Amino acid sequence: MTLDAVLTRIDDTLPEALDRLSDLLRIPSISTDPAFKPACAEAADWLVKELNSLGFKAEVRPTPGHPMVVARHEGPGRHILFYGHYDVQPVDPLSLWERDPFDPEIQDTPKGRVIRARGASDDKGQLMTFVEACRAYKDVTGTLPGNLTIFFEGEEESGSPSLIPFMKQNAGELSADLALICDTGLFADTIPAIVTMLRGLAKVEFTIHAANKDLHSGMFGGAAINPIRVLTRILGGLHDDQGRVAVPGFYDDVDELPEAVRAQWQSLAFDHAAFLGAVGLTTPAGEAGRTPLEMIWSRPTAEINGIWGGYTGAGFKTVLPAEAHAKVSFRLVSRQNPAKILPAFRAWIEAQLPPDCTLEWHEPEGSPASVMEITDPAFEAARSALSAEWARPAAFVGCGGSIPIAGYFKDILGMDAMLVGFGRDDDQIHSPNEKYDVESFHKGIRSWARILDRIAK
Amino acid sequence: MTLDAVLTRIDDTLPEALDRLSDLLRIPSISTDPAFKPACAEAADWLVKELNSLGFKAEVRPTPGHPMVVARHEGPGRHILFYGHYDVQPVDPLSLWERDPFDPEIQDTPKGRVIRARGASDDKGQLMTFVEACRAYKDVTGTLPGNLTIFFEGEEESGSPSLIPFMKQNAGELSADLALICDTGLFADTIPAIVTMLRGLAKVEFTIHAANKDLHSGMFGGAAINPIRVLTRILGGLHDDQGRVAVPGFYDDVDELPEAVRAQWQSLAFDHAAFLGAVGLTTPAGEAGRTPLEMIWSRPTAEINGIWGGYTGAGFKTVLPAEAHAKVSFRLVSRQNPAKILPAFRAWIEAQLPPDCTLEWHEPEGSPASVMEITDPAFEAARSALSAEWARPAAFVGCGGSIPIAGYFKDILGMDAMLVGFGRDDDQIHSPNEKYDVESFHKGIRSWARILDRIAK
Repeated sequence: MTLDAVLTRIDDTLPEALDRLSDLLRIPSISTDPAFKPACAEAADWLVKELNSLGFKAEVRPTPGHPMVVARHEGPGRHILFYGHYDVQPVDPLSLWERDPFDPEIQDTPKGRVIRARGASDDKGQLMTFVEACRAYKDVTGTLPGNLTIFFEGEEESGSPSLIPFMKQNAGELSADLALICDTGLFADTIPAIVTMLRGLAKVEFTIHAANKDLHSGMFGGAAINPIRVLTRILGGLHDDQGRVAVPGFYDDVDELPEAVRAQWQSLAFDHAAFLGAVGLTTPAGEAGRTPLEMIWSRPTAEINGIWGGYTGAGFKTVLPAEAHAKVSFRLVSRQNPAKILPAFRAWIEAQLPPDCTLEWHEPEGSPASVMEITDPAFEAARSALSAEWARPAAFVGCGGSIPIAGYFKDILGMDAMLVGFGRDDDQIHSPNEKYDVESFHKGIRSWARILDRIAK
Repeated sequence: MTLDAVLTRIDDTLPEALDRLSDLLRIPSISTDPAFKPACAEAADWLVKELNSLGFKAEVRPTPGHPMVVARHEGPGRHILFYGHYDVQPVDPLSLWERDPFDPEIQDTPKGRVIRARGASDDKGQLMTFVEACRAYKDVTGTLPGNLTIFFEGEEESGSPSLIPFMKQNAGELSADLALICDTGLFADTIPAIVTMLRGLAKVEFTIHAANKDLHSGMFGGAAINPIRVLTRILGGLHDDQGRVAVPGFYDDVDELPEAVRAQWQSLAFDHAAFLGAVGLTTPAGEAGRTPLEMIWSRPTAEINGIWGGYTGAGFKTVLPAEAHAKVSFRLVSRQNPAKILPAFRAWIEAQLPPDCTLEWHEPEGSPASVMEITDPAFEAARSALSAEWARPAAFVGCGGSIPIAGYFKDILGMDAMLVGFGRDDDQIHSPNEKYDVESFHKGIRSWARILDRIAK
């Protein structure tokens, strides 16, 4: 029973694994700040050294930004690519940290032991779960399991400027049969999850122009059109009385959830009241007849993320402004595409513009939704592995946010991705005092060992 | 024929009157800038000296800010109070002035002679029309006409902080039978006007609060209420399809224009296309079935003067903000009162708030509309006088803006006000290169002579 021996090895060497994670956490690899460019290079070098020591053929691969790490082990079975990122978020405000963000410490808390440092959860702790699972296999069997590529990025927290060019230039090497991504969380503190649906995102900033200059409301008020009035009238109608987006055709490419998935989500017994209550709310604001879990995982949205116009300073100015602005984004699901949604939104606005108003339009970017092909047997295999490790049935879940890498893997490299991660809601990623539970780390390593046992052959 | 002699005297002494105005214009009495406090005092002293030389009993009256000037001439007939202000706006940006703003010059222009300097039109040139009319009477008859008080303020351009306390403390002295205010304009370049309706103003800034912190739209989008969505939905319904304000009871205290006034306004042949065209607009945006002149003079409005919420910087942030803000003002007419309108607006908003949203409310200030009692024979007398001077029927007009002094005179001193002025639309008040037409000055003096001839007895 190789797996049992590997799991035992993982248990026995946990202190050393935590030491290695601490070494990586000490490297302040903040990708967005040029001052930390050497630290990013140091983190990449550290990983290459570790991976080579495990028998991978690992290299630092330069980019115009921070380097990539690519490691290869040729073996039998399906080619599996594992993705993670070694860069971390900035630490401001430093004054809110209990201790140096780059001096990791194992701490006992009422909820268990944690390792506290910037990047502990996002994503150094997570990517090391996979590395340590590989190490245990190597220790026990003398070789790495299966047919593996490891791909670490160093710009995930700063917009991944080099990622798409790098993937295109190295598509032959990176195109595996399946990608594993470890940058998500447990469904609840003890329920493992595989993300199978990621919402896409379409964004637009626009301006409504009216008079050729700001006007005084005493002189012109009542006779001159106020573009804020036009903007609020249009955006005030963005949702109908049932909470549905009013743009024509918006739901054309939205699929209803398969009954099996819906039933599984219901079985999760998600605490909707606690979810909203944590941020001071009581009442779901989305489409009538849907649960909050459906709303955030499987239903599209339209949100006004910013609005501004006229005088917004202290005091009062009775101005009729010449223009008014908004930033609007749509979370997309199923087959919805930004290239179809944004023009429909624009046409819907333009049809409502009164005389003398014009529209200025700026689409920054967008990405469609990702829906994984869970018919791939690897998904059921991983679910079975996770259920065995956590002694709770693993859930196929959605994710309300957008994780662009999954879409890139599909579009550029032609492979599906399976997202498995062990973060918890209280990990404080991107915030002061980030932590990763030692249990997440330990059982995360064991989880990958079990998954590799099932799929890497 | 005393009046004929007075008018001849005015014509004969115009150069000297322009010299005196120039002397006053040389004093840089910018009230909002503490550096010019001595200049404000100097302007008040200069006026007191002039008025005493004419036979008024004039005094500088200190206040916590800049001094008032009060001058009294006891005589027969109704007690008439004349109001003007000797302070001026700042001159920034100085680089846009053709010459020193406080070095007045008579210039020939394609549209006639002008005197150019800061304050030439607002309000030193205007207030001196009345002083010079008094002087001509004194020169011809040996005494001032009628029963007069002159009241000059030095803080009109900086919010009049001392005005209300001063009027209350000196109410006995300042309460006349009728006030004359010279701080408005001609209706068109050659059509004299008496303002008989001033719109009031009610202002409020409010915030809609939702979640207890900003949320990420990936994590919460669809399930959590977005206060910008609530704000746009509510404000988007502030006007109905006919352009009428939708707040219940809003029109309860709005009177329709008397037929005679409406007919007179129609006879003004106001160029609506030119009025809107000057600011790049073509289509009146107010209530259906009303002309732009009605919209700005006699109809109430609701305007969103400012709106803001969420992320408004460069780029994009998919935030669901915790709050959204607006500044809304109402121009009021007839018997509309801020004390009734603002609570009605608040109740209308609160009735539309969804669960989990709360309203924060801040009413900075407000003033009701002023509608003059034009049945006072002085109004017809002044209209007849102005029509004779300008050889064009004078108009009773409205004013879309708010001139608080008229309301203060009514509320604090119990007297109606008649607003007559000779400014023109192109005077560039508050802007670089302010000017006053010599014709406005000359015929303005003659106009007051004719008005005094009819009412100051």
